[in-house]
Amino acid sequence: MKRIVLALFGAGVLAGAIATTGPVSGQSDGEASPIYGVKLPQGYRDWHLISVKQLTGAGGLKQLRAQLGNDIAITAFREGKLPFPDGAIIAALHWNEVSADADDKVLASGFPDADLESFFAGSAVNVQFMVKDSKKYAASGGWGFADFTNGKPGNLALHEKCFPCHQPAKDRDYVFTHYAPTP
Amino acid sequence: MKRIVLALFGAGVLAGAIATTGPVSGQSDGEASPIYGVKLPQGYRDWHLISVKQLTGAGGLKQLRAQLGNDIAITAFREGKLPFPDGAIIAALHWNEVSADADDKVLASGFPDADLESFFAGSAVNVQFMVKDSKKYAASGGWGFADFTNGKPGNLALHEKCFPCHQPAKDRDYVFTHYAPTP
Repeated sequence: MKRIVLALFGAGVLAGAIATTGPVSGQSDGEASPIYGVKLPQGYRDWHLISVKQLTGAGGLKQLRAQLGNDIAITAFREGKLPFPDGAIIAALHWNEVSADADDKVLASGFPDADLESFFAGSAVNVQFMVKDSKKYAASGGWGFADFTNGKPGNLALHEKCFPCHQPAKDRDYVFTHYAPTP
Repeated sequence: MKRIVLALFGAGVLAGAIATTGPVSGQSDGEASPIYGVKLPQGYRDWHLISVKQLTGAGGLKQLRAQLGNDIAITAFREGKLPFPDGAIIAALHWNEVSADADDKVLASGFPDADLESFFAGSAVNVQFMVKDSKKYAASGGWGFADFTNGKPGNLALHEKCFPCHQPAKDRDYVFTHYAPTP
């Protein structure tokens, strides 16, 4: 009850309070994200594929991205179940996009006239998580957010952006990503 | 022995011979790929992520792609084990790349000045497989190849390109894709 009242004063105030509680089951022992107290979930690199994205931006920014889900999240995506059930976790893995010159030569000889260019996931940038816990994170749509670079969570200012940015996807339980069809 | 001798006459000749044998364990009951007799493996949509790619080309071609591996393939990638052991299967899922206008509006308000544009996996294009069986596919570097669109394998001409195209990656056991680092 005390936590719910506190939440009304803004998620930022909770930074210390939640971060000092024990790790959620399946989370590692590292540092927790501000506001939400989410630690790096174990084994997320092997979760199932939700979809793939590309992000471009000023200054030559080019990223390839993959969204992975734990079993609870994947089942909910497949069944179109909204809101996502407690325990669902979505991971977004981001890499710098790199030219694949060697691949391009092969593509040019195998498929002349197609002018093919290939790009692949290069160095790691960061990984983000949405963790569903409708009680713990009642003040932010039931989701706890986290953004890690080299295993370290980003700062408070960064994490204050997570929930407001996801507001426009409220109809999809604050999740932008759609489950990609199976080719 | 008869199969090996036949293979010397060119992989194309084998199309009928291998396709009429029973399905390999874990493969579905559908149509098999020409030359290699590979059927759509069961459950590949839930295999682990190897990496992510983008392909662009003439005529506005823009694809987002994900490479997934079964447990044997993923273990080999992580341990840098070459050649890949028998039983390894690599899947390449291809989608048309689509603009994410709704996401872009959110990105513009959350991160002004960054000029961010987001693209995601839209409709499914096709899925390709490399199946390692060093005896069965001795004539093609130990790999059987398959390319499916809407669950149907492509034609003989398409499958005749697979192995020659992968020759330049001989040093990496004919596999172009690298395992993406974990962010």
